[in-house]
Order: sequence, then C-alpha cells, then structure tokens
Amino acid sequence: MSTEPTTSAPMSDRTRIRRIPELGAYDRTTIDAILDAGIVAHVGFVQDGQPIVIPTLHARIDDMLYIHGSAASRTLKSVAEGLAVCVTVTLLDGIVLARSIFEHSIDYRSVVVLGTATLVNDPEDKLASLHALSEQILPGRWADSREPTDKELKATTILRLPLTEASAKISAGPPEDAEADGHLDVWAGNLPFVVKALEPIPDPALRPGIPVPDYLTHYSRDGLTTPPNYA
Amino acid sequence: MSTEPTTSAPMSDRTRIRRIPELGAYDRTTIDAILDAGIVAHVGFVQDGQPIVIPTLHARIDDMLYIHGSAASRTLKSVAEGLAVCVTVTLLDGIVLARSIFEHSIDYRSVVVLGTATLVNDPEDKLASLHALSEQILPGRWADSREPTDKELKATTILRLPLTEASAKISAGPPEDAEADGHLDVWAGNLPFVVKALEPIPDPALRPGIPVPDYLTHYSRDGLTTPPNYA
Repeated sequence: MSTEPTTSAPMSDRTRIRRIPELGAYDRTTIDAILDAGIVAHVGFVQDGQPIVIPTLHARIDDMLYIHGSAASRTLKSVAEGLAVCVTVTLLDGIVLARSIFEHSIDYRSVVVLGTATLVNDPEDKLASLHALSEQILPGRWADSREPTDKELKATTILRLPLTEASAKISAGPPEDAEADGHLDVWAGNLPFVVKALEPIPDPALRPGIPVPDYLTHYSRDGLTTPPNYA
Repeated sequence: MSTEPTTSAPMSDRTRIRRIPELGAYDRTTIDAILDAGIVAHVGFVQDGQPIVIPTLHARIDDMLYIHGSAASRTLKSVAEGLAVCVTVTLLDGIVLARSIFEHSIDYRSVVVLGTATLVNDPEDKLASLHALSEQILPGRWADSREPTDKELKATTILRLPLTEASAKISAGPPEDAEADGHLDVWAGNLPFVVKALEPIPDPALRPGIPVPDYLTHYSRDGLTTPPNYA
C-alpha cells in the first residue's frame, strides 16, 4: 500500500528515507500534494546549537516553499546568508491497530524539506506569498478581505526556500502482524482520522446582515476530509 | 481569551515566548494538558549542522516526556552524552477570520520542550513508556493486544527527556481587527477544526466474529473533538 518510490531531482543523501525506505517517495507530484494538503508546518532551525521547532503556516508557489516567519525571523536576521531550516508537514490519517502492540503504527503522510531560508523582501513577492498562504488555508478568503497596506506588508515576515531537497513518506494500509499472531482473538484494522470544520462562529462584533460566506459553509480539504489511503 | 501566563519552574530564557508574549504559558497544568491531548509530536535535532524535524509519537509519565525514537536514534547513537532536541506538539483549533488579511490567524495550542534526549534502555522502563505511548493514542488498546516480547522490546527505540524546560502558547478567541476595519462588509469570526475518527475499517484478514471494541466506536479525545477555546 505504500507509494512506490521514484527518484527525481529533490532526493539527496540527507533526505533519503533510511527508516523503512520502501515508504519513501521523492517525486514532486507526491511531495506537492502533501504540502498543498497541509494547514500547519513545523519549521526547525538551530539557535546557539539548540534545535528549535515552531509551528507555522506554509504555502507553495511552483518550486518555492513560503513560510510565515515570525518565530524564526529574529534568528534569521542574525545570519546574513540565510538560515538552515527543515520544514516538515505531517498529515495524520489514522491509527493502525495490529494484534501485537509491536506492529501498531500510525497512518500518515509527511514531507521533509531541507534548505536555506531567506527573507522575502520585495513587496510584490511578499504580497504574492501572503496570497498563497491565505489560499492554502482558506481558498476564496483573500478576495473577500481587506488587502494588506504597505505598512502591514512591512510588518509581516515571510521566509522562503526552494524545493530542491525534499522527501515524502507515506504510511498507509492494514496492519501487518506476524503470521503467528493472525489467530489471536484481537480486533485489527484501521481507525481513520479526518480534520473536520465545525459550524463557523460569528465574531461577537459582526455587523448584522452579513451572511456566512460559501467558502466556510462548504469548507473541505482534499486529502484531509477524505483520507486517500483508505479509498 | 489567551491564557494568563503564570511563571513556574519550566520557563527558561530559551523557552520564553518572545513573539506575542501574552499568549505564553509556563505552568505545568497548561503544558501537560496540551502534551496529553496531542497525537503527533515533531522532534527536532541537529545532524551535521542541519536541523531535522521528524513526526513522531509521544507520551508523558509524570515529569518525563517519552518519544518514539527511530528517526533520531541513529543520530543519538553517535552522541554518547545524549542528543539536544526540541519536541513540539501542536493542536490546530481553527482559523480566525478577520476583516483584514493582516489580522487573520490560526487558533492553536502548542508546547515546545527543549532538552537532552537519552535512550531508554531498561526493559521495564521501556515497557512502561510503550504502555504510555499506546494509552496516549488509543486508551484501552494495550490491555487487548499481545504485549511485546523481549526481542520486540529490544527492537524498539524510545527516547526520553525531562520536562524541565518547556513553554506553551495558546492562541484563541475572536478576530481583533483594527477599529477602522469594523465597518467593512466582511464576515468575521472563527472556523473551528476538530480531529474526528471515522468508522473503524476491519483488517481484510480479520477473523470473523471479533466485534469492534468499545474504545474504537466511542473514540474521542478531550481537547481535540471539542476545542476548549470555543466553549
């Protein structure tokens, strides 16, 4: 059930999947689909020798990954040539219940991107990446909202890194108990998870007469609301 | 709506929340609740100067955080005195829709734990931490499954680090638009997210006559299935 790894440009010795290598994938179609389905990314960087991992938002424009950079920007600003980062996006698809504790696992899709993050300074690039970040999370919202002013743009920190070194890992499918455990009187299978949006909650200060927009009432995420691995 | 920060032992200069400090919390009650509600943790470590961030499973026993350590174990084994890590757990609670793009944000709860991870070698400690990892994800499952053999225990890598340096960050509540934007004809409010378990999927090889256990049909997670910040 795991994706067949196909090798293409983004694989490197550093991103090669060593742990259960048959779950690894290096093709951009697989990598992009996981990045594009995620809401939260975890960015890792090193500060005085200590690794720091912070949740952030991300979006992809073609071969470039953008992340909201507030948490890392203070560190980045001390490193003129850019900051070594790892950006990881994980989609939790479910629990795999085997008959033995040992074979229990998690169904997930994840992407690890390594690279050097730099600040996005050009106002047009910044606006385009903010637009991508907005569409990544809530398609349709940008067109409805007040766009950033120049001052707001300046107060926003966006980092970017090229998608030149990345790998995906997909774990999916039924449990794989040892044959000797197959006879056990234990339920086995998968418990799938989805991220589900509940009813929108209006701002207490919302002016009356403004309807809930369509993109909220029909909010769903391909790959999140329907885990593809159980189809 | 943000949690009032109260200072206690786990705060350090490295974990002090610098970005929007009023969202920070350092009390163990807040930290433990977020750690205990999470299914996935992201562990960061440094390999040849490069930060690496890998999704993993975690569980807490009292003042100790345990993580499933396969991904980091190869690196850890080259560092006899333990591996500097950052373990981050993030719960995605929803999207905050402001009238201006600039004030859009995410409602989330996260914990960042810094420390030195060491291998759990003692078989009894290892069994106890595996039990905690199992209960963290699927309470009740351990008692139903075949327990690990000595050989399986040896093949499992568990890391641990003490909860001595940790901080929480909670972002919650309605949008905070500038007063000048309040008149805009734009819907504003929150779109809450939950992680929801779907119907369990039996293993195709499941023996007939084994019922779906109660802990699956009634699976829910406090803090995940009911985002507490919207109560």
